[in-house]
Amino acid sequence: MDHAGFVPRHVGITSEADLARALTRIGVDSLEALMDAAVPASIRDEPVGARAGEPPSSIPEPASEQRVLAELRDLAAQNTPMRQMIGQGFFDTVTPAVIRRNVLENPAWYTAYTPYQPEISQGRLEVLMVFQTMVADLTGLPVANASLLDESSAAAEAMLLMRRAAARAPRGGADPVVLVDTDVYPQTLAVLRGRARAAGVTLVEADLSAGLDAALADEPSPAANRPLAGVIVQQPGDSGRLTDWRPLIARAHERGALATVIADILSLTLLSPPGDQGADIAVGSTQRFGVPLFFGGPHAAYMAVTDALTRQLPGRLVGLSHDDAGAPAYRLALQTREQHIRRERATSNICTAQALLAIVAALFAVHHGPEGLRAIAGRAHAHARRLAGRLSAAGISPAHDAFFDTVRVALPDEAAADSVVGAAARGGVNIRRVDARTVSVSADETTTGDDIDVVLRAFGADAGAEPDRPRSGSGPLPPEEGDALDGIPNALRRASAYLTHPVFHEHRSETSLMRYLRRLADRDLALDRTMIPLGSCTLKLNAAAEMEAISWPGFAGIHPFAPPDQTRGWRRLTRDLERWLAEISGYDAVSLQPNSGATGEYTGLQAIRLFHLSQGHPERRVCLIPASAHGTNAASATLAGLEVAAVATAADGAIDLGDLRSKLEAHAGRVAAIMVTYPSTHGVYEPQIREVCDLVHAAGGQVYIDGANLNALIGAARPGRFGGDISHLNLHKTFCIPHGGGGPGVGPVAASAHLAPFLPGPQAPATWASSAGARPGPDPDDARAGAPVAAATFGSAGVLPISWAYIRLMGADGLARATRGAVLAANHIARSLAGDFPVLYTGAGGLVAHECILDLRPLTRESGITAEDVAKRLIDYGFHAPTLAFPVAGTLMVEPTESEDLGELDRFVAAMRAIRAEIQDVIDGRVPAGESVLRQAPHTAAVLMADRWDRPYTRAQAAFPLPGMSADKYVPPVGRIDGAWGDRHLVATLAPPSSAGRPAGEAD
Amino acid sequence: MDHAGFVPRHVGITSEADLARALTRIGVDSLEALMDAAVPASIRDEPVGARAGEPPSSIPEPASEQRVLAELRDLAAQNTPMRQMIGQGFFDTVTPAVIRRNVLENPAWYTAYTPYQPEISQGRLEVLMVFQTMVADLTGLPVANASLLDESSAAAEAMLLMRRAAARAPRGGADPVVLVDTDVYPQTLAVLRGRARAAGVTLVEADLSAGLDAALADEPSPAANRPLAGVIVQQPGDSGRLTDWRPLIARAHERGALATVIADILSLTLLSPPGDQGADIAVGSTQRFGVPLFFGGPHAAYMAVTDALTRQLPGRLVGLSHDDAGAPAYRLALQTREQHIRRERATSNICTAQALLAIVAALFAVHHGPEGLRAIAGRAHAHARRLAGRLSAAGISPAHDAFFDTVRVALPDEAAADSVVGAAARGGVNIRRVDARTVSVSADETTTGDDIDVVLRAFGADAGAEPDRPRSGSGPLPPEEGDALDGIPNALRRASAYLTHPVFHEHRSETSLMRYLRRLADRDLALDRTMIPLGSCTLKLNAAAEMEAISWPGFAGIHPFAPPDQTRGWRRLTRDLERWLAEISGYDAVSLQPNSGATGEYTGLQAIRLFHLSQGHPERRVCLIPASAHGTNAASATLAGLEVAAVATAADGAIDLGDLRSKLEAHAGRVAAIMVTYPSTHGVYEPQIREVCDLVHAAGGQVYIDGANLNALIGAARPGRFGGDISHLNLHKTFCIPHGGGGPGVGPVAASAHLAPFLPGPQAPATWASSAGARPGPDPDDARAGAPVAAATFGSAGVLPISWAYIRLMGADGLARATRGAVLAANHIARSLAGDFPVLYTGAGGLVAHECILDLRPLTRESGITAEDVAKRLIDYGFHAPTLAFPVAGTLMVEPTESEDLGELDRFVAAMRAIRAEIQDVIDGRVPAGESVLRQAPHTAAVLMADRWDRPYTRAQAAFPLPGMSADKYVPPVGRIDGAWGDRHLVATLAPPSSAGRPAGEAD
Repeated sequence: MDHAGFVPRHVGITSEADLARALTRIGVDSLEALMDAAVPASIRDEPVGARAGEPPSSIPEPASEQRVLAELRDLAAQNTPMRQMIGQGFFDTVTPAVIRRNVLENPAWYTAYTPYQPEISQGRLEVLMVFQTMVADLTGLPVANASLLDESSAAAEAMLLMRRAAARAPRGGADPVVLVDTDVYPQTLAVLRGRARAAGVTLVEADLSAGLDAALADEPSPAANRPLAGVIVQQPGDSGRLTDWRPLIARAHERGALATVIADILSLTLLSPPGDQGADIAVGSTQRFGVPLFFGGPHAAYMAVTDALTRQLPGRLVGLSHDDAGAPAYRLALQTREQHIRRERATSNICTAQALLAIVAALFAVHHGPEGLRAIAGRAHAHARRLAGRLSAAGISPAHDAFFDTVRVALPDEAAADSVVGAAARGGVNIRRVDARTVSVSADETTTGDDIDVVLRAFGADAGAEPDRPRSGSGPLPPEEGDALDGIPNALRRASAYLTHPVFHEHRSETSLMRYLRRLADRDLALDRTMIPLGSCTLKLNAAAEMEAISWPGFAGIHPFAPPDQTRGWRRLTRDLERWLAEISGYDAVSLQPNSGATGEYTGLQAIRLFHLSQGHPERRVCLIPASAHGTNAASATLAGLEVAAVATAADGAIDLGDLRSKLEAHAGRVAAIMVTYPSTHGVYEPQIREVCDLVHAAGGQVYIDGANLNALIGAARPGRFGGDISHLNLHKTFCIPHGGGGPGVGPVAASAHLAPFLPGPQAPATWASSAGARPGPDPDDARAGAPVAAATFGSAGVLPISWAYIRLMGADGLARATRGAVLAANHIARSLAGDFPVLYTGAGGLVAHECILDLRPLTRESGITAEDVAKRLIDYGFHAPTLAFPVAGTLMVEPTESEDLGELDRFVAAMRAIRAEIQDVIDGRVPAGESVLRQAPHTAAVLMADRWDRPYTRAQAAFPLPGMSADKYVPPVGRIDGAWGDRHLVATLAPPSSAGRPAGEAD
Repeated sequence: MDHAGFVPRHVGITSEADLARALTRIGVDSLEALMDAAVPASIRDEPVGARAGEPPSSIPEPASEQRVLAELRDLAAQNTPMRQMIGQGFFDTVTPAVIRRNVLENPAWYTAYTPYQPEISQGRLEVLMVFQTMVADLTGLPVANASLLDESSAAAEAMLLMRRAAARAPRGGADPVVLVDTDVYPQTLAVLRGRARAAGVTLVEADLSAGLDAALADEPSPAANRPLAGVIVQQPGDSGRLTDWRPLIARAHERGALATVIADILSLTLLSPPGDQGADIAVGSTQRFGVPLFFGGPHAAYMAVTDALTRQLPGRLVGLSHDDAGAPAYRLALQTREQHIRRERATSNICTAQALLAIVAALFAVHHGPEGLRAIAGRAHAHARRLAGRLSAAGISPAHDAFFDTVRVALPDEAAADSVVGAAARGGVNIRRVDARTVSVSADETTTGDDIDVVLRAFGADAGAEPDRPRSGSGPLPPEEGDALDGIPNALRRASAYLTHPVFHEHRSETSLMRYLRRLADRDLALDRTMIPLGSCTLKLNAAAEMEAISWPGFAGIHPFAPPDQTRGWRRLTRDLERWLAEISGYDAVSLQPNSGATGEYTGLQAIRLFHLSQGHPERRVCLIPASAHGTNAASATLAGLEVAAVATAADGAIDLGDLRSKLEAHAGRVAAIMVTYPSTHGVYEPQIREVCDLVHAAGGQVYIDGANLNALIGAARPGRFGGDISHLNLHKTFCIPHGGGGPGVGPVAASAHLAPFLPGPQAPATWASSAGARPGPDPDDARAGAPVAAATFGSAGVLPISWAYIRLMGADGLARATRGAVLAANHIARSLAGDFPVLYTGAGGLVAHECILDLRPLTRESGITAEDVAKRLIDYGFHAPTLAFPVAGTLMVEPTESEDLGELDRFVAAMRAIRAEIQDVIDGRVPAGESVLRQAPHTAAVLMADRWDRPYTRAQAAFPLPGMSADKYVPPVGRIDGAWGDRHLVATLAPPSSAGRPAGEAD
């Protein structure tokens, strides 16, 4: 082994014998020689600290797993878990142990990829259907997507959706307005403002509680007279107030506008839901359904819409279809509306969602069922009611008579808020300081009578001796308590049923739920069973030690708006990570806020746009994007208010410099930026990258280097040093955050000093932000400053300990070793398969970077067998398919990563070679393509063990195409799925009990 | 739901609709009516605290999972994790996170049952083969078993094995002697003394370091002149001393005796192993291979022997055989030598082993490989060497020049030990106080240079400034350190190779190990996929919340001999548990020490034997045991020095009272006890139990009630109140400790006041025991006092938080509800299947207790289809088989437990009915028994997906006998295994690399 410690645990090829074998296959002498040959000398970089006079690397020497866990424990101990009654969109909750252990802490769930290959994703697709059904039921709207990134950005998506709908029904030439109620969470307002500014939406903030006309009457006339695209309100409001929004929604509809309600998911078990109130769109967070506070994220937001809006719904949507045997099967529906297809015409840039957290929230509902959820909500309300009652009795009147779980109080004395908040904190309870004389208290699933007593005493109110407290526990609410919904006006009480599907009733016992989870997990292929060689997605080891800390209460139990003296550990961890990532990427500053890669792209482009504005160049709006770029790039540019201009690809796959020059000329003076991925999406270290950067800089543009392929660069070159002005990194690719079956993601943005002021500002009460020691950020009132892009300052903070641990375990040298391992593995595969499948693009020395494109097109022309057939056939061999049809249709892009060992790489090579032979059978006419083992793949147990067999190949060929497969054979639960049929007959919720006794996935 | 909180999570049938369906099937109106009808009124008992004037129940009201975890966190916080350098058989170690997460915290591993059904146990059987191979390699002996309970009891097993071997080769009439070196751990000496006393072995303790003849010369002549059965020595010794035992062993062999070496498993990577030194037997603990300290247990001990002793090896032995298709397959070998077959002729009563911990230890070796283990050992030695050197330099000479990891020091000043120990403790390091002026320090895998510095300063020695510390980390030792084995004499250094099999080399990367673990887990059927309806074994839910605390450092990181002020939380937890279990069982005192049910039996019978001795009745040696009793009962009685007399079973399955009377008469004056299981092993509440107890008491005997079936009694009746004097309970049956694939177990003994003084004494340094607040126990120097039966006071302490949490979550009412649920489920199955399979025995109202015996014998006579055929065929239906052939050959005993819901019970009923129809096909002559789907079960993927099919039934009949099975079909990796062939051709280690490239289980 060439390294001790963690490196040989993370990197697959480390023994001398294996290294020698792989290097020989490639034809180089050493890893160093490989990198020298593959990476252009023009961008090669010394490790930080290697040059004389340079400050040492910020990344400490690598430490053992035991040591790193001890350091994390120490950081966690510097945070203070409190009873978190701050509310404001983040509520304490209990993650049921059975779900934590069997999902959140089980690699079968968290290492899974986005379910683009639905045949091996039926388990998580089923739970996402449960999620959609849960959201649809609770919101009273027919269609819900499979999660969005957080409540604030979901509200922004709703705003954009309403604007699009208005654009499709134009009423006069004036740009339509979106009205948002002022009683919306401030973090959501901040995100709405930034996204509206970027997208050119006229967003008007007004008090809508008195009705639409009254609000518009107060507005300056231009807004009042312009067409109205939509209204956004929140239930309960930021103030805790419950409002009957029916009249407002009806009036908005009369004016041709749509209505969005941001609704607390738990409150919907008791309250008349948005759908019943007439809303067109409902959004909100599902965090309080069992997902820890996580210092602000990751949390799954939801969006539900009316039937009319279904095809404009952003984000992922799971739908029912059927497989080639007619059996019901789930898959992602309506994918043609997504950004990777529609590019700059996309309505949203959402790529990663919050699949793992949506799964937890859905299972929370499965665990508790409607009666359990109602009991939890009823108890929270009862605690709030008791608090309001006793405060009133003490002469401190709550701001609102109608409330759910949150009681806002204006204190009689000036500046009394600090003393009340402080007294509560001394009792172990965090409450919310709204302003100098206003506080707010939110009850939740975990609230006890003792907590309320602490709060009452903090107000100086009498907690009372009589037993008026709600019972604690998790069972159904006793009738006398359940009926006591005094704080909820009759008109707002829920009448409609919800969660009637059997899945919400059958798994009340832990034994039953545990087996359901196992059954679902077994249907899916994740990283714990096979390599997932997805080009551009970098599915590497998510080590158990890296994952451990995320569920510790010292990290998971912290509220994002907790005062800074309670979050020292979190802030140290984020500061470390910011510093390390800046060094690794070669930039000056890092924002950890973007909670997905696409959000990172948007954030980086927003910074570029704001920079040009600050320089007095509003006309610089053109964003050059190579034709081979990921579709998300174009969608993000559009959302950031830029115009996309494509740059052609040369014959060798590189950026066509001639075309670049002509585009720069054509858009002279209007170029905002170029957005390039490096190494390119073709898997090649393009030698002319410095020239590209120089040309764009010379034209006054900024260079955005998409960090999707950073796994091929660390320790070899730094984007910030070879020409980039800004980049986003994907911590869920390069830095070991697992894909979670489609999220969470973290897409931090790293920027050069001149762009740093335009990175997103913090999301925290202004009173705390100043004392938080946070990086001096943009002034939130400066229209040119970077607006927040997520609901919490550190976005998906909860998973940052994973990347922190990875860097800490590897050290700078170890990270560089991982890069070399990734390049080694990709070249090993490229060379091994070159005789069977041509590698489409290579760079210097015929080498690829960390991935390679296998060109299936010549074989497809000869045989009719497609890249998709190969992808599906790989399932029969026990593999997850490589990336299909990106960046070039008709190809497979293979990225093995450094974590795969030689055994697994060679198993893949053997499978691909065997598949090549199967294709030859078709070419040679031994079997028609339509009847071939490839076209009929994958093969289910139902097919392989059926009595009847009438195929032109044998069962053993179908099932055991390579030796050694029979003992541990993976068999997919469904065969090839007909996605188009499902799109024509969209079903995106589980069938109601009348039409099916069990969810479709459980039926045979 | 009839209960809120945790009860409906634990109990499967709680909804009103399900309850009504099950009750209707049975024909009773309510759960209460069911219990009234089933349980004899003569033993029914009020809950504690229900009677006026009685003190309240000690069991608190049930609490939520969240609350119970908070209380456990509080208890854990009352323990003090230190750097544990006490040694004495317990060493700190790092459980690799990948193993903790994917094995210790994964229900697929920990909920598995003992691998009696090998076809669905190939995964864990393979790892147990890895364990056996690891032990055989490291000890230099050819055959090792699959673990024993702990090092001390393993030494006792070795002593008994040597005595048996001597008895088989008698040399003169005198009772042979076993010699044990005085430099053996004191806890082991204590267990040896007790077991020798019970079994009538003459155990002589002597200083053997000067040779056998010198030692015998010092002994009083009778021992010196009697035949010698064996010698027992330890390497390194209790004092840390390394000794070249070759001359002693050679001399023992010359005298016809055998030699046992108790060897530290880690030291064997550096030291000449017992086998190379000529030993016949090696035993020891594998704890320091990744298993936490756990306050003393559970830890897997090992035993390895020469070929000559193989068939006398106690405990489980896994061996290679083949299945009906000739494929290699593992299963338990040589089972005929086990206690359930040989009963009172058994050589050991071991039933539960430490499978889960043996699996962890084996995987630790797989993870690190030989070079990693050697590095860990080398580093521990290097730390010890540095300590010894610096102490010498400071004028404090270590007691021995030859040592591995432990340095013993006699201090110059009288009574200086306390001050050195105290100073180290103030630095966060626990070292061992041997006596007033002697201390001992042990280095381990986790030791750092800082730890040694703390210790050096505690001695007042100079830690030095120069960089003489060994590097920390887990990689291979640098050559300069690895060669520096100064403390190990050349003659004792290891020359032979070890861990050469590929399994110890192929999984160095975490990705590879994670996938290996998943692949192995997928081969097995555990409670996370199916009910395991094992009569007498009670496989109920092991809730995730119950399991969580066991790996917390506050529990897992505590040394069993840590001073009492560091273990307050542990002691509170054990005190609670003792009190609760005493109340539940109706006794006065509880010992938690026995670390298995069989050890509990032995411990209880030892108490009875000692009681009679204390009463002046050495002649009371007869233990009456019903013919239907578990074989372990008889084996335990024999080991406790009692003579077994069987009592016949009447036609109705109950104890034959007439025969009991005649046996009592026949053995008048000699009756020590009766040992009965209640409800009986026939699954019936025998109405005459009180009469049985009265008869035995009248004859002067004690009543031992085996608590195996306590799950049918809690809240309904208490053994201590209806006639029992003593019982053992099985926390791994009734109180939710998972079976772990064959251990750990906990078998506490509950006793009435008159037997309490004879419960096992504590295992702790005498100086601490007095201040520990421990229950006043027997005087260890009193020959009649209860001797310790395990290496640590609280035996398998580490898993006690599971049972504590279960009781805390359920409360007394909830526990009673569980009992009622268990009886409900068993009767539901009995009634549902009565028309297809006769239930052999029933009690009042035709009801069974918590399990029922399905009598296959009439069908076997008609069809030739056996109970085993049915058991194997159930695998095809996705079920683990019920208990086969116990207590009645030709039957299946079904115990569904309260945790199964109606859906799972009815799925089982449907499977059994379908199997009944398959048997009918044989009876009706439609298919010969030998070719039937039953006889050819289970069916593998290799068979079901083969091209050829020549069976008289269809593939679909074989694979999908019930609707709805195809999507989630479990397929066993091997077919029916030929156990007898394997016994004739015993292979109990993995093939060396020359004969196979991969372990057999990985080959196809």
